[in-house]
Amino acid sequence: MASRITKFSKTIVPMMDRVLVQRIKPETKTASGIYIPEKAQEALNEGYVIAVGKGLVTSEGKTIASELKEGDKVLLPPYGGNIVKVDNEELILFRDSEILAKIQ
Amino acid sequence: MASRITKFSKTIVPMMDRVLVQRIKPETKTASGIYIPEKAQEALNEGYVIAVGKGLVTSEGKTIASELKEGDKVLLPPYGGNIVKVDNEELILFRDSEILAKIQ
Amino acid sequence: MASRITKFSKTIVPMMDRVLVQRIKPETKTASGIYIPEKAQEALNEGYVIAVGKGLVTSEGKTIASELKEGDKVLLPPYGGNIVKVDNEELILFRDSEILAKIQ
Amino acid sequence: MASRITKFSKTIVPMMDRVLVQRIKPETKTASGIYIPEKAQEALNEGYVIAVGKGLVTSEGKTIASELKEGDKVLLPPYGGNIVKVDNEELILFRDSEILAKIQ
Amino acid sequence: MASRITKFSKTIVPMMDRVLVQRIKPETKTASGIYIPEKAQEALNEGYVIAVGKGLVTSEGKTIASELKEGDKVLLPPYGGNIVKVDNEELILFRDSEILAKIQ
Amino acid sequence: MASRITKFSKTIVPMMDRVLVQRIKPETKTASGIYIPEKAQEALNEGYVIAVGKGLVTSEGKTIASELKEGDKVLLPPYGGNIVKVDNEELILFRDSEILAKIQ
Amino acid sequence: MASRITKFSKTIVPMMDRVLVQRIKPETKTASGIYIPEKAQEALNEGYVIAVGKGLVTSEGKTIASELKEGDKVLLPPYGGNIVKVDNEELILFRDSEILAKIQ
Repeated sequence: MASRITKFSKTIVPMMDRVLVQRIKPETKTASGIYIPEKAQEALNEGYVIAVGKGLVTSEGKTIASELKEGDKVLLPPYGGNIVKVDNEELILFRDSEILAKIQ
Repeated sequence: MASRITKFSKTIVPMMDRVLVQRIKPETKTASGIYIPEKAQEALNEGYVIAVGKGLVTSEGKTIASELKEGDKVLLPPYGGNIVKVDNEELILFRDSEILAKIQ
Repeated sequence: MASRITKFSKTIVPMMDRVLVQRIKPETKTASGIYIPEKAQEALNEGYVIAVGKGLVTSEGKTIASELKEGDKVLLPPYGGNIVKVDNEELILFRDSEILAKIQ
Repeated sequence: MASRITKFSKTIVPMMDRVLVQRIKPETKTASGIYIPEKAQEALNEGYVIAVGKGLVTSEGKTIASELKEGDKVLLPPYGGNIVKVDNEELILFRDSEILAKIQ
Repeated sequence: MASRITKFSKTIVPMMDRVLVQRIKPETKTASGIYIPEKAQEALNEGYVIAVGKGLVTSEGKTIASELKEGDKVLLPPYGGNIVKVDNEELILFRDSEILAKIQ
Repeated sequence: MASRITKFSKTIVPMMDRVLVQRIKPETKTASGIYIPEKAQEALNEGYVIAVGKGLVTSEGKTIASELKEGDKVLLPPYGGNIVKVDNEELILFRDSEILAKIQ
Repeated sequence: MASRITKFSKTIVPMMDRVLVQRIKPETKTASGIYIPEKAQEALNEGYVIAVGKGLVTSEGKTIASELKEGDKVLLPPYGGNIVKVDNEELILFRDSEILAKIQ
């Protein structure tokens, strides 16, 4: 799974309950090698988790660790998140609770 | 009951208190086999639970498990949820508390 | 009291702190048998409790059971609730806390 | 004090932290028996408590009993409450915390 | 201090964390006895506490007593409060937390 | 530090988590004594703490004392607060949590 | 790392869970010394932590210390924060939870 995850020149450590996600890009060619016009490329709400914060600290002082870990394939919400540019790659920081599901 | 639930090519594990639901499609033919025109097809707010998240983690660090389990027939709210496309099938992710009732 | 409550072909189990209510229909005839024109029929904010959920699970993991039980005659709020159609009958799902009062 | 409180043909048991109140009607005649024109009648934000709910159940599962009891004369807020018609009399259901003060 | 506080024909007991306040009226004459035109009278956001409620009951069932007591001179917020008419005098009910400060 | 703080004819004791602040006035002359036109005077978001309330009482009944004390120089938020006139001087009451920082 | 952080003539101690941040300025020349026109300068959402508050005091009276410390390089949100001018330098005060990530 690690092979599908891009290595970046700087390490981003998400704060609190944030997770750093790299959106999976839509296919630009078919299986047989034909280019798919940009309009026909299907937008994907899937991504890989690049980094996970320590978790939210509650008012009781407990840290709630995320269910997610580096390398998880996840289903992303249609909106939200903060875009971060690393090595000309757009990554997204979500709150842990915004991630809809893991894909196995 | 399992027979009424579609099998999908990938497993979606809902995060936290989310549940993955497949809406029941309106009948397209009558019992005697006559096609029902699309306008006359009755929209259904019923679905089957495909997968259930681990539950919400409260500020005290407790996990509140859902009342729901895979295979439950449920009554869906008229709005809300996040649509997810799996194998060309539209599934919906709801927060556990948005599901109105179980149908037995 | 059970005699005043309609039996339905399917059992709806409200989720969490929801209660399923059947609104009492306005009288369509007077005591002496004369039909009341629809305009003159008085809208009633009263109903019977058909089913009660297990109760709300609090952040401490406690389940708060409802004060209500099946068969209770209740005073309904003027708005709110989710309409559910069962056997061509419109039932309403309310949050327990939306019910105004019991009528004895 | 009981003499000032109307008896009703049905008993309404307010849910949770609700209280049932009967608004005091403005005087329609002066002390000397002269009728006061409707416009000159002073609206009163005072009422009598007819019934009190068990109290609000907190997330810790404790029931917070109301400071109010049947027969209390109270100061009502200028808005809010749910109107309930009993024996052609308009009663009002308020949340306990909406009642401004007791009058002694 | 008691001498500055008006006596009223009925006792108002504020509910919960409410306090009953009598606003101090702007001066209508100068020290030398000259009448100040109404426009030039300075609005005052000061008042005297007439009565104090028992305090707010928290979700843990504790009663939080107010810092204020009868006779306190207080600084009032520019808006908010519920006006109550007692003996043709306008009094105001504030939530304890809305009072800005005590003046000594 | 005390010398920089104005003495007032009445003592204002802020309620709860409020702090009373005197805004520092912009310079009206340069160091060499030349008057600065009003437009060119730089607005300052700095002030001195005149008085501090006892602190917020939480729902557990604990009093959270402020980090601030009389005489502290503070950085004020660009909006918010309630203006209070004492001895023709405009003071401001802020919630403790609105104060941005202490300046040392 | 200390060398990258500007020294200021006054010390600002952020209140509660606030952190004081100095935004990193976009490059104005290329590596080879050519000036970059202002339009082409890339806005940076990165900064250095100058000072960190003691942390948020929760309703249980616990102080939640920040994950951040002086000198940390951080990823800033696209909006929010309070601008503070120190020695003609614009610094920004953020709530600890608004900081998106640490950069290592």
